Amino acid sequence: MSNDFLSLANTGVQKLRPYQAGKPTDELERELGITDIVKLASNENPLGLSESVKLALLKELTELTRYPDANGFYLKQALASKYAVDVNQVTLGNGSNDLLELIARAFVEPTNEVMFAEHAFVVYPLVTQAIGAQAVVVKAKDYGHDLPAMAAAITGNTKLIFIANPNNPTGTFLEQAELKDFLAKVPATVLVVLDEAYFEYAASERRGNAIAWIAEFPNLIVSRTFSKAYGLAGLRVGYSISHPDIADILNRVRQPFNCNALALKAAETILQDEQYLADSVALNNAGMKDLSAFFDANNLEYIPSMGNFITVNVSNPADKKMVDDKTADNKTGDEVYQQLLLEGVIVRPITGYGLPNHLRISIGTEAENQRFKQALTHVLNLQ
Amino acid sequence: MSNDFLSLANTGVQKLRPYQAGKPTDELERELGITDIVKLASNENPLGLSESVKLALLKELTELTRYPDANGFYLKQALASKYAVDVNQVTLGNGSNDLLELIARAFVEPTNEVMFAEHAFVVYPLVTQAIGAQAVVVKAKDYGHDLPAMAAAITGNTKLIFIANPNNPTGTFLEQAELKDFLAKVPATVLVVLDEAYFEYAASERRGNAIAWIAEFPNLIVSRTFSKAYGLAGLRVGYSISHPDIADILNRVRQPFNCNALALKAAETILQDEQYLADSVALNNAGMKDLSAFFDANNLEYIPSMGNFITVNVSNPADKKMVDDKTADNKTGDEVYQQLLLEGVIVRPITGYGLPNHLRISIGTEAENQRFKQALTHVLNLQ
Repeated sequence: MSNDFLSLANTGVQKLRPYQAGKPTDELERELGITDIVKLASNENPLGLSESVKLALLKELTELTRYPDANGFYLKQALASKYAVDVNQVTLGNGSNDLLELIARAFVEPTNEVMFAEHAFVVYPLVTQAIGAQAVVVKAKDYGHDLPAMAAAITGNTKLIFIANPNNPTGTFLEQAELKDFLAKVPATVLVVLDEAYFEYAASERRGNAIAWIAEFPNLIVSRTFSKAYGLAGLRVGYSISHPDIADILNRVRQPFNCNALALKAAETILQDEQYLADSVALNNAGMKDLSAFFDANNLEYIPSMGNFITVNVSNPADKKMVDDKTADNKTGDEVYQQLLLEGVIVRPITGYGLPNHLRISIGTEAENQRFKQALTHVLNLQ
Repeated sequence: MSNDFLSLANTGVQKLRPYQAGKPTDELERELGITDIVKLASNENPLGLSESVKLALLKELTELTRYPDANGFYLKQALASKYAVDVNQVTLGNGSNDLLELIARAFVEPTNEVMFAEHAFVVYPLVTQAIGAQAVVVKAKDYGHDLPAMAAAITGNTKLIFIANPNNPTGTFLEQAELKDFLAKVPATVLVVLDEAYFEYAASERRGNAIAWIAEFPNLIVSRTFSKAYGLAGLRVGYSISHPDIADILNRVRQPFNCNALALKAAETILQDEQYLADSVALNNAGMKDLSAFFDANNLEYIPSMGNFITVNVSNPADKKMVDDKTADNKTGDEVYQQLLLEGVIVRPITGYGLPNHLRISIGTEAENQRFKQALTHVLNLQ
C-alpha cells in the first residue's frame, strides 16, 4: 500500500521548501574530513557565551525534569521593565522566527495578502506560503525596503506587512522618519511587523525606539531576539512588543512551552549583563570596519550594513560594477561559497534571496575575520 | 485610535482559549507566601535530572552562541537506530505538542474534520480550533477511547484522528489488537496520530511496538516525548516516526530551530542512559501502587492508569459511586484542588476535560506522595 501524502497536505504546504540553515561546522567536518573550520554563515555572536549566563544555567540544570514556566513570568517582567511597557504587551517566542510565524498564523487567512520587500528575510515568504496566502513582494531600492512603493502597494486584502530593520541579508537600514511616515499611511486594520532582530547592532544615535510608537500606531508589532547581540542563538528566545490585545491573541496560538527552561533563564540573565552587550557591539564594529576596509582595498562592492554581517559582491572584483549574470571571468556567489568551504570557511550564499553574485559574511572574531580574508584572497586571486 | 484586534484574527483563533499549564511552584509561592511546595500537577518525572545529562549539558554550554543543528543530525540518528527506522522517518519537535500541531497544520484545512475521544488530551481540540477545522469528539467508554465508535464516526471529511495511548488525563490504555483492528478500518487517506507520550510507563508486556506497524499502515504517525520517563520536560523535545513522505512534509512546516542546542544534546544523551529510564519506571510503579492502595483504603474511586499519574474521584468518597454533580455532601474537584493548594500541594483539576469530580495526581517521589496523601486526608476528612 502506498499513499501520495503530498496530495493530502494543505495547498500552501505542498509548494513549501524548508528553510535552509547555514551549514553547521560539524557537517562540513563530516563531509570534507577537515577541522579548524571558521563559520561566518549564520549571523551568530562570535564573542562566546556570557559567563553570567553560564553561571545561571549551571544553577538551573537540576530543575529540568519540570516543565518551563508557560507564562515566562520573570523574563516578561524583565522585558516590560526594560522597555517601559506592560507585561501583557510582551509575547515570548522560540526565537523571533516563532513570533513571525505566530503573527501570520493568528491573523492571515489564505485569501489575504502579506507584503514584504525583495531581498528581505526568507522567513516572511515561508510563513506566507505555509498559510497559502498571497505574497506581495515589493521591489527593493538600493537593496533595501522601498517604503513609498510598499505603502502604494497596500490593497483591501493586505493583512500583514513585514519590515526588517536592519534587513537581513542586506544590512540596509531605515531611518525613524521614513518608518513613521510609512506607518502613518498604513490603515489601522493592517498589521505591521517591524522585525528588529539586529536592533542592538544598529548605530544607537539612529535606531530610535519603535516600541514607543505603539501608542500612536497600535497596529505596529516590534519583534526582537536574544540570538544575535545577546549571544543566545542556541537557546531560542525572541519576543514581540505589541498592543495587549494583539499579545493576547498571539498567546492563544503560541505553544505554552515554546521557550524552554534554560532559554528563559539565560535570557533573563543576559538582559542584565550590559557589559556583554557592549562587548558584542564593540567587537562587531571593529570587525565591520576591518572587512569593509578589506573589500575597499580589493575593489569588492559591498552593501553598507547595520547588522552583524556584511554582504559583498564577489563576482566582479575588477571594476566595482554589480554584475547580474556570470561571465567567463566571474564566479557566482555559489561557486565562491563552495571554494571557501574547501578552505574551511563557511559563509552564506544568497542566491535564494535574488542575489546570486553576493555572499553574506557574518562578522567574526578578529582571527575568524582574518581566516576569511585569507581564504577569499586565495579563492579570488586577490592582490 | 483603537482597534478591535480580535475581529482581525482568524475565525478559529478568535474562539481559542490558551492551554492552561499546571500551576508552577513559584507562582503558588508568590501568591500564598508559602514554601516547601509539592507539585504533582504536570506529569513530570520526580527522579530529578539524570547525571549523564548534567555532564553532557555542562560541556555544551560554551557553544550556545551558535544556532542549533537545524536537522538534529545526531539525535535523529540515535532515534532511527534505536527504533530500527530510517533517519528520514524521524521528525523532531519542541515537545511532542509541537508535532501534534505541525501535523494538524500541514494536513488539515478548515473544511476538514479532526477526530479524538472525549476526555482525551486537550491539545487535540486546541490545534483543531486554531485551524478552524471541525472537531469530532467521540464519547468515551470507561473513560478511554471507544475505537469501534471512532471508526464508525469517520466520514469523507475526516482528515486526522488523534489517539492517546496511554491517554492523558485518564491513564486508560488500548491493547495492541484493538488498535490494529481500528487501523485496518481507517481509510488510507486519513492520518492517525498515535500519541505515545507515556509509552515508557506502560507495562512492557502489553505496550507492543506500534512503530513497526507503519509498514502496514503508512497513514500511522507515532509520536513520543522526552518530557516524561526521560525527565526532560524543561528542555522540550519530542519526535514522531512516520512514513518518510509525511516526515518530509512535517519538516517543511517545522521551524528549523524548534529544538534548541541543549535540548538536542540532552535527548541524545538520555537515550543512552538505560539505568535512568529503568529507575524512572520503577519509581513510578512503586508510587502508583502506593497511591492506588491509599485510594482503595479510603474508598476513593480511581481510573486504573498506565501513565505516570492517576486520576481519582474526590467528590464522593463514601460509596465509591461516580457522581457527576455536586451535592451538599460533596466537594468538586476544583474545590479540593484549591484546598490542596493551601496545604502546599499542587495537583491538576480536570473540569476542562469533562471530569469535574476528578483530580489528576502525578506520581511523585515517596516523600511527595506522602505529602499528598496527608493533605488529601486533611482536606477530605478521611479516616
